[in-house]
Amino acid sequence: MKHVIESQQFDKETLIEIFNKAEELRTASSNILTGKVLATLFYEPSTRTRLSFESAMLKLGGDVIGTENASEFSSAVKGESLQDTIRIVSSYVDVIVLRHFETGSAKVASEVSSVPVINAGDGSGQHPTQAILDLYTIWREQGGLDNLTILMVGDLKYGRTVSSLCYLLGKFKDNKIIFISPSNLKIKSGIKEYLEKHDTNFEESSELNPHLQIADVIYLTRIQKERMSEEEYNNAKGLYGINQDNFHLLKESARLMHPLPHIEEICLPLAVEGSDKRVAYFRQAENGLYVRMALLLRLLSSS
Amino acid sequence: MKHVIESQQFDKETLIEIFNKAEELRTASSNILTGKVLATLFYEPSTRTRLSFESAMLKLGGDVIGTENASEFSSAVKGESLQDTIRIVSSYVDVIVLRHFETGSAKVASEVSSVPVINAGDGSGQHPTQAILDLYTIWREQGGLDNLTILMVGDLKYGRTVSSLCYLLGKFKDNKIIFISPSNLKIKSGIKEYLEKHDTNFEESSELNPHLQIADVIYLTRIQKERMSEEEYNNAKGLYGINQDNFHLLKESARLMHPLPHIEEICLPLAVEGSDKRVAYFRQAENGLYVRMALLLRLLSSS
Amino acid sequence: MKHVIESQQFDKETLIEIFNKAEELRTASSNILTGKVLATLFYEPSTRTRLSFESAMLKLGGDVIGTENASEFSSAVKGESLQDTIRIVSSYVDVIVLRHFETGSAKVASEVSSVPVINAGDGSGQHPTQAILDLYTIWREQGGLDNLTILMVGDLKYGRTVSSLCYLLGKFKDNKIIFISPSNLKIKSGIKEYLEKHDTNFEESSELNPHLQIADVIYLTRIQKERMSEEEYNNAKGLYGINQDNFHLLKESARLMHPLPHIEEICLPLAVEGSDKRVAYFRQAENGLYVRMALLLRLLSSS
Repeated sequence: MKHVIESQQFDKETLIEIFNKAEELRTASSNILTGKVLATLFYEPSTRTRLSFESAMLKLGGDVIGTENASEFSSAVKGESLQDTIRIVSSYVDVIVLRHFETGSAKVASEVSSVPVINAGDGSGQHPTQAILDLYTIWREQGGLDNLTILMVGDLKYGRTVSSLCYLLGKFKDNKIIFISPSNLKIKSGIKEYLEKHDTNFEESSELNPHLQIADVIYLTRIQKERMSEEEYNNAKGLYGINQDNFHLLKESARLMHPLPHIEEICLPLAVEGSDKRVAYFRQAENGLYVRMALLLRLLSSS
Repeated sequence: MKHVIESQQFDKETLIEIFNKAEELRTASSNILTGKVLATLFYEPSTRTRLSFESAMLKLGGDVIGTENASEFSSAVKGESLQDTIRIVSSYVDVIVLRHFETGSAKVASEVSSVPVINAGDGSGQHPTQAILDLYTIWREQGGLDNLTILMVGDLKYGRTVSSLCYLLGKFKDNKIIFISPSNLKIKSGIKEYLEKHDTNFEESSELNPHLQIADVIYLTRIQKERMSEEEYNNAKGLYGINQDNFHLLKESARLMHPLPHIEEICLPLAVEGSDKRVAYFRQAENGLYVRMALLLRLLSSS
Repeated sequence: MKHVIESQQFDKETLIEIFNKAEELRTASSNILTGKVLATLFYEPSTRTRLSFESAMLKLGGDVIGTENASEFSSAVKGESLQDTIRIVSSYVDVIVLRHFETGSAKVASEVSSVPVINAGDGSGQHPTQAILDLYTIWREQGGLDNLTILMVGDLKYGRTVSSLCYLLGKFKDNKIIFISPSNLKIKSGIKEYLEKHDTNFEESSELNPHLQIADVIYLTRIQKERMSEEEYNNAKGLYGINQDNFHLLKESARLMHPLPHIEEICLPLAVEGSDKRVAYFRQAENGLYVRMALLLRLLSSS
């Protein structure tokens, strides 16, 4: 494994190895990356992804440099190409974590980089490390990755986390995915073709509540204002949500997940968020730390 | 001590312990926080506070991640609540230093955080670590914290450093505070009630020069344009200042302090700033490093 | 050596010592700066310079704090003077790397700092560490610093890297510099006087191609839109460039250098950029890491 660019590149065995390594890293830290430097190049804002990568690197003994607003503060403002920035930064550090607003940018970066590039989100393309931590969360919470009914809810068109997670779910068997979205934000046909080819059952729906009782996982997403027109946004927002009126429909073993940040699509009392086991999204976010530690180790520890 | 939220939480004995630890740390560093990570979440700009916390953590062997403009570059722009941000960041790190524009935000954060939260300024609320370093500076420069006459000058209404320092001074005896401010920026009644309850003498005045000769400490503050209306600002600015015309009125043992940054309220020749012992504000700023090291040790070293 | 402010301060022997140390550091790293903290204060955007300094410090075992947009996020927005910021930051850290938009600011900073200040670019003044890495690149690529014909091309008036490099070249013998620029962006007379005094041959020209065949080094620079009027920019842009039409004119031993970022003044096929030895600008950028490691060691290792 030289770069982390898209979910498809991970096979089932590699994923399970990463999950086992992540389990290990929850309790036993390591100093194995001492002397290595990670650069975070973020052309779009982020808290979770950037901070968890940085903390992961530090907790493995490595160091971190970077920019939280590459669009404004880097040579991009002087007109430099992404390729040139990557060529140069890769000569200073041992691994690059890139978030960029253009689909395909991570692939472009990996082609000119002399060190591993990790895609931390490329426009409406992919976000593979999010998908791996999502899958790891399902694996931990459900005790496996087979025979599950998974609802994917919200913006399935622009939401890169859903695309990336579907590519991973296709590697496992006997699961059923129900895509629930407004008609203008339906899952892309490329994903559906991929799932068909991988014998993964799916259906599409425009309603949430009828499916809640049979779901093992509800994967809710935010309608991303920043990726669509105002009209598209107004038609879509507020259509699907989990709140006190429908949360009780969930099975005891069901898990409510969300890549976060969430806005009004989740509205639960503090007490429920703090103690009901079905609320899994904060554990999901924490899992990002361990998954990213496992990935960094895999990319860097034998180099 | 689980969090650092407001000055009132510190008793006299704890403060003196922190001061003695800070003295120790001036000469003997330590690696005791190796493996721990601090996150700085700053929703308002700062140089001094953020950089001194970060340097303090590094000098104790720990590591640092963070954002210097959380308002723009974090998930706040996507509509995430402060609580959610804190919940998640606290799962990545060992301590959070928070500066936020809303009064009370540090308390809110501490209620959902799984790790210690340090209030580095919450709107016009408090700034307790500034108050501790201010008190440490008085203790060092005057050799104690009793029988002192202390002038508090400038914006006493919105200035959170003055409020926080008053809460600490109330714990010590036989001091006298003289509040000097424009009529529209007077000290809050809550502070006055607190001082009365703690038997601390104080008076209010609208003039600076008549008090300069009797002062042991002159604690000058900036009129904070960003916290008031333009009219309030224009009425208040330039009313009180220390310059060549009145600096000579100070006793030899008096100390001029300022939480910095200062603008035109201090205007002294470079030679005076560099060599006159009464100019204490640069030493005061440096003291922040040692006090913050002592606080981080206290919060983290036994955990 | 207490500070790094301008190229002139380095003599020939010191430069060669730095180059030899940089060679050493390419292969053998060091932990000699453990416990030291570097602050990067950048009032103008940068990727290369900031990240290479930060990586250099980390790779020597030190730590880094800083701000990538000091103009907006530091106390500068509250009206604090640069001197006060430097006085305070210098009490928190062991070395300061400063980029500022005002010519002369690094000198001002060094006068009040209690720790070494490194000038990482001051307006249209100097950028001495860039000049040292440029010279190191010529030394490495050409096997020495004598008997070379060097073209300096582009914005020679506002381009601080050209000024700084000329001051260094004046220390070596038997070289010839050809300055090629539009008439409104000619090399400053101060530089020409310096070169005359140091017996360095130079001439001025407004054409590039006639000189390409005799050049050992072509040092191309960007026309810096941000430092001139729109009219000046429109007259100057696009006048000089290296592309498929004239690149073949270069000798096999010639080297194309650029302080980067470049825009349209270099336009070569990816294959040429990746494999033709005459393309030296990415190696030049990488050299910055080793030169900055050598400089940090020199400033800090015996302190």
